[in-house]
Amino acid sequence: MWASGWRLAAAVSNAGALGLIGAGSMDSGLLEEHIVKLGAACEKPFGVNIPVSNKRAGDLIDVCLHHRVPVVFTSAGGPGVYTDRLKAAGVKVAHVVPSDKLARKAESAGCDAVVAEGTEAGGHNGLQEITSMVLWPSVVDAVKIPVIAAGGIADGRGMTAALALGAEGVQVGTRYALTEESSAHDAYKEAVLRSEQGDIPLYLRSYMPTRAIANEYVKSVISAQRDGATDGELARIRGVGRSRMGIFEGDLEQGELEIGQVGSSVERIVSAREVTLEMIAQYKRVIERLSYEMTP
Amino acid sequence: MWASGWRLAAAVSNAGALGLIGAGSMDSGLLEEHIVKLGAACEKPFGVNIPVSNKRAGDLIDVCLHHRVPVVFTSAGGPGVYTDRLKAAGVKVAHVVPSDKLARKAESAGCDAVVAEGTEAGGHNGLQEITSMVLWPSVVDAVKIPVIAAGGIADGRGMTAALALGAEGVQVGTRYALTEESSAHDAYKEAVLRSEQGDIPLYLRSYMPTRAIANEYVKSVISAQRDGATDGELARIRGVGRSRMGIFEGDLEQGELEIGQVGSSVERIVSAREVTLEMIAQYKRVIERLSYEMTP
Repeated sequence: MWASGWRLAAAVSNAGALGLIGAGSMDSGLLEEHIVKLGAACEKPFGVNIPVSNKRAGDLIDVCLHHRVPVVFTSAGGPGVYTDRLKAAGVKVAHVVPSDKLARKAESAGCDAVVAEGTEAGGHNGLQEITSMVLWPSVVDAVKIPVIAAGGIADGRGMTAALALGAEGVQVGTRYALTEESSAHDAYKEAVLRSEQGDIPLYLRSYMPTRAIANEYVKSVISAQRDGATDGELARIRGVGRSRMGIFEGDLEQGELEIGQVGSSVERIVSAREVTLEMIAQYKRVIERLSYEMTP
Repeated sequence: MWASGWRLAAAVSNAGALGLIGAGSMDSGLLEEHIVKLGAACEKPFGVNIPVSNKRAGDLIDVCLHHRVPVVFTSAGGPGVYTDRLKAAGVKVAHVVPSDKLARKAESAGCDAVVAEGTEAGGHNGLQEITSMVLWPSVVDAVKIPVIAAGGIADGRGMTAALALGAEGVQVGTRYALTEESSAHDAYKEAVLRSEQGDIPLYLRSYMPTRAIANEYVKSVISAQRDGATDGELARIRGVGRSRMGIFEGDLEQGELEIGQVGSSVERIVSAREVTLEMIAQYKRVIERLSYEMTP
């Protein structure tokens, strides 16, 4: 959200991966604009991510169908809501899940793939806080459809680790949010680069677990929760538009700076093309090293 | 603790890995007994894990030095407390760390290696809850000494993932706690086998984060924390001897059933030898698969 518009998706697809537009922050008009611009900037396949629980999700799906978007990733909601409609139109559907149980549900709903997203991921997260190391192989064992690993992957080492655990692809958010083509505010990107390990906790736990930088706003929510705030009080403190304020407008203290835990490891803003090509090159180097080390 | 006595350590070392006695639950007399029995059952190197914050840690170190234990893993405390003394006696020292910052501290203290342990690990955990996927490569980048990966590794896939991320070895707790040679109570082992994803949370957060099965006792602590219990009240509810009661005596509701999050993925109790040999065999198969898939 707020980081992945047509520019980032085009750069990723043009570099040989599958670029996604994050439509969670868009209305249908804006999504349409992004899809048209992306189509003009890129001849390769691309996709759109749509949070099912978003009240505009149906309209966003309509836009995708109208413009023959080949791939839709659905998240934050049940896999059964839109899958049939998308599949009937020939769209490939991947659903984001935080547990082996929900992966089975996505498979039953007819999804083509699942994105198994560990609790280290940025933004909204599963309640059970299953980490990528535990989640990925368990989902690989639970379903027959391909598993795309997400949560904590920022380079070719992480990509290789995911494939070693049985995933057939990786979804990368944090690293791409910190590229030149990301539409996130420069102040937000720089705040993530400055962050250290421990600065990116899961907050709003047991209400709506979200991973973001522990700034003034997040600390006030954590302390309200410690003081026993109800879900209603938390919703009121949170208000609306916090992620826009943080990620898009760069309000570092009162905005919500959603980012994955691996954000503290990222050191430079580079192009999405460089991230993609270096990830693939490093993946090859890592496998060559592993093969060499295994030789008796 | 309570699972890794001389029998388990001997089986692991005899199978070709490095078996460790977990001395956290022992007094010096009992540790001595275990070291002597282990020495008789195994001609290969082995080690002892000692929690630095344990009030008997100094005595336990004395026993290790007296019996010329070749390797000591220190944990739960500063790396500077015992490293010099152990190194002066020619002992190899690995220190367990939950963050890149503490890894650097362990390196400065003269440790031979660090164990980078992610928040998915069982038992006592770091406050910052850094997951293995994020922690391992960050520690590899932070220090020059070898990194041993821990937290969430239960099979050869996990081992390969750790090596892909740059670790030079793996430390495996949960999978070995669930073997025939583990001294944990059968009822405890069966409770872990029955557990599902989401059943093994981190509790006592911000006081003394510990990962264990969410039984009656753990749920009572979580609810006390939600109601604003102070650290003193939490310590009183916890009392003493909970892990012995749970792991060693098999009290499934009032004991503390410490185990890693990956415990929910383990399906069978087998011998530690089988775990070790299968982990190495699977590691080789995974690298062969990765090499094959990479071939254009």
